[in-house]
Amino acid sequence: MTMRNKLTGSRRLDLGPNQGLIGKPKSRQALATPALVLDLGAFEHNVKTMARLCKQAGVGLRPHAKTHKSVEIARRQIAAGAVGISCATVREAAVLVEAGLPGVLLTTPIVGNIKLDIVFGLAKRSKDFMVVVDNLAGVAALERGGRKLNVLVDIDIGMTRTGVPDIAGAVALIRKVQASKLLKLAGVQAYSGMVQHIALPAEREKAYGGQLKHLQAVLQAASEELGYVPELVTGGGTGSFEIDRRAGLFTECQCGSYVFMDVEYENVQLLSTGPNPFRTALFVQCTVVSNNHPTSPTTDGGFKSFSMDGPVARLARGTSKDAVYQYFGDEFGKIPGEKLQLGAKVELVTPHCDPTVNMHDFYHCVRGNVLEDIWHVDARGSL
Amino acid sequence: MTMRNKLTGSRRLDLGPNQGLIGKPKSRQALATPALVLDLGAFEHNVKTMARLCKQAGVGLRPHAKTHKSVEIARRQIAAGAVGISCATVREAAVLVEAGLPGVLLTTPIVGNIKLDIVFGLAKRSKDFMVVVDNLAGVAALERGGRKLNVLVDIDIGMTRTGVPDIAGAVALIRKVQASKLLKLAGVQAYSGMVQHIALPAEREKAYGGQLKHLQAVLQAASEELGYVPELVTGGGTGSFEIDRRAGLFTECQCGSYVFMDVEYENVQLLSTGPNPFRTALFVQCTVVSNNHPTSPTTDGGFKSFSMDGPVARLARGTSKDAVYQYFGDEFGKIPGEKLQLGAKVELVTPHCDPTVNMHDFYHCVRGNVLEDIWHVDARGSL
Repeated sequence: MTMRNKLTGSRRLDLGPNQGLIGKPKSRQALATPALVLDLGAFEHNVKTMARLCKQAGVGLRPHAKTHKSVEIARRQIAAGAVGISCATVREAAVLVEAGLPGVLLTTPIVGNIKLDIVFGLAKRSKDFMVVVDNLAGVAALERGGRKLNVLVDIDIGMTRTGVPDIAGAVALIRKVQASKLLKLAGVQAYSGMVQHIALPAEREKAYGGQLKHLQAVLQAASEELGYVPELVTGGGTGSFEIDRRAGLFTECQCGSYVFMDVEYENVQLLSTGPNPFRTALFVQCTVVSNNHPTSPTTDGGFKSFSMDGPVARLARGTSKDAVYQYFGDEFGKIPGEKLQLGAKVELVTPHCDPTVNMHDFYHCVRGNVLEDIWHVDARGSL
Repeated sequence: MTMRNKLTGSRRLDLGPNQGLIGKPKSRQALATPALVLDLGAFEHNVKTMARLCKQAGVGLRPHAKTHKSVEIARRQIAAGAVGISCATVREAAVLVEAGLPGVLLTTPIVGNIKLDIVFGLAKRSKDFMVVVDNLAGVAALERGGRKLNVLVDIDIGMTRTGVPDIAGAVALIRKVQASKLLKLAGVQAYSGMVQHIALPAEREKAYGGQLKHLQAVLQAASEELGYVPELVTGGGTGSFEIDRRAGLFTECQCGSYVFMDVEYENVQLLSTGPNPFRTALFVQCTVVSNNHPTSPTTDGGFKSFSMDGPVARLARGTSKDAVYQYFGDEFGKIPGEKLQLGAKVELVTPHCDPTVNMHDFYHCVRGNVLEDIWHVDARGSL
């Protein structure tokens, strides 16, 4: 029997050591830590806001689950109007398809027989499951599954990571997928990750503008040479959303980080005018575990609680305003200059939300000071 | 019914997508990736070598499971002569105690009722389970469990992270634990993490020498003022092992990284004379997933497969000797200047083994080109 949370309706399985706190007064302050904390109010605002912005812009939203890796969050995005869910790994795809989510798009080209077999199994379970391909050999590999598979051609518009980089190559690959009796050409994908975090709108536009021109040229060539106008043109992120919306090339966007925000995105001016429309919703809560050096307390959050690829985590609760966090090994951090009680709690904005979430097993969902629910990070791991 | 692997005797539960490859020829080359790869020959050499070095030095070995987080590896360390297993988190302690491992020592002071209740439960299951304390309030918190608990006093010899920093404070805390009717004073702990990675033995000794003098002074004061000579003096790591052995203060050492080695430790000269006695045993295998830019192939290993706190991962297999890896986002890496086939495999030495292991779910245990077994990373997570 599946138990359900009375407050949020989510399924309740093994929810870790903090399960007993759900619904209790001041339970946010009683968490065993390090704990990923999701501010439900800010999260719900973000889900609703992006859905509204996409609707206003007349584009679909297929939010990227590489950010949250969570069935529960994907369900809420769909409930708010998302047309499907993007994902980056086979594990994410498997978790989302098996949970019954519609329109799952695996945005990474898949290589290797074991992963391909998993992908073929997912296509059997979900009719609107989609994968991408970025070279001719990949087409043959996908045909090996022997069943109708929805395929997008991945276009490299300047990131040089995955995708076909040249126009002729893109047209040739589109033609190849079109000609396949086993694959169904669903559209094209074009994602440029590195431009997302450029702080100022004008500079972001400068770096990204030429890339969008390349996408436009590919679409034009496909139209002229093949008479092909893709049903789906998918891509973009939280940073490029305003530009993508204006460019009018994409039929849908894959924004992911908007659900949580993080230190990196707090430093990005998302709109040319007006404040950022999204609120910081994700935190890591840590506890002071030693304060024998009274002006430099030691906490329990280090390299295992925060991804180290971005800026340092920002202290948001429990300290003076200008306190700065320092990592202090795998399991520890310190806060120089602060005088904190043993057992005191601090909360930090995640430096880069996606890989930080990947280190944790649970979202501790709070409203004010109450732990309202615990959700699983269902699809963590890199496989 | 528990299935067992015929080659290694380990338990077999859900072992992920590579399970079907176990025992097959050339299976190492067929892994779905990113995959943590453990070279069994090098690993077994390391386990045996550290056991022998400790025996020769007349000190016990309580290897630190914060490195491996694995029941199977802990069992092998015990089988090779370790007196017990150290661990850093409550989750690690729970996994190890519940698996029946002897002499589990939780090396971090525990704060907060939820974690303390778990600790009390573990003490009920294992008579030789031990925890540490570093302040007077901690003694009262541990007494709340209402049962005999083995406690070590944690001494800060210079790292300023946890532990009692001054001699008088250390003596007062030892006295307090001695006087407790509920706690059993098992000894003292002194660990200095930051000195472990100082590259040259002479410089390491210079930084660490004064710290060991402080430990000696604490032991002397405890002897003179309380007539107390601790049964256990535990601490030290892979980097400080030679110095600790010579100093004659420790009854046992908590070395952890020696089982795997990593880029950080490859850069440390462990012994004043002669080569490092340990072999690099741990790798992350990645696959080329896109090579449309032929001299800069894209792999599937990024911020989610390697901890970012240390140096960059070192390419050890599958490329030319001087190739240098670059991270390329959460799920990707690139290898500029290399021409690699789609699906080609590369293997990289982990930058910092402990937090890198924390990102993965399985050890893929290889001997030569055969995947011999898959072991769980049983106790990943920061809780």
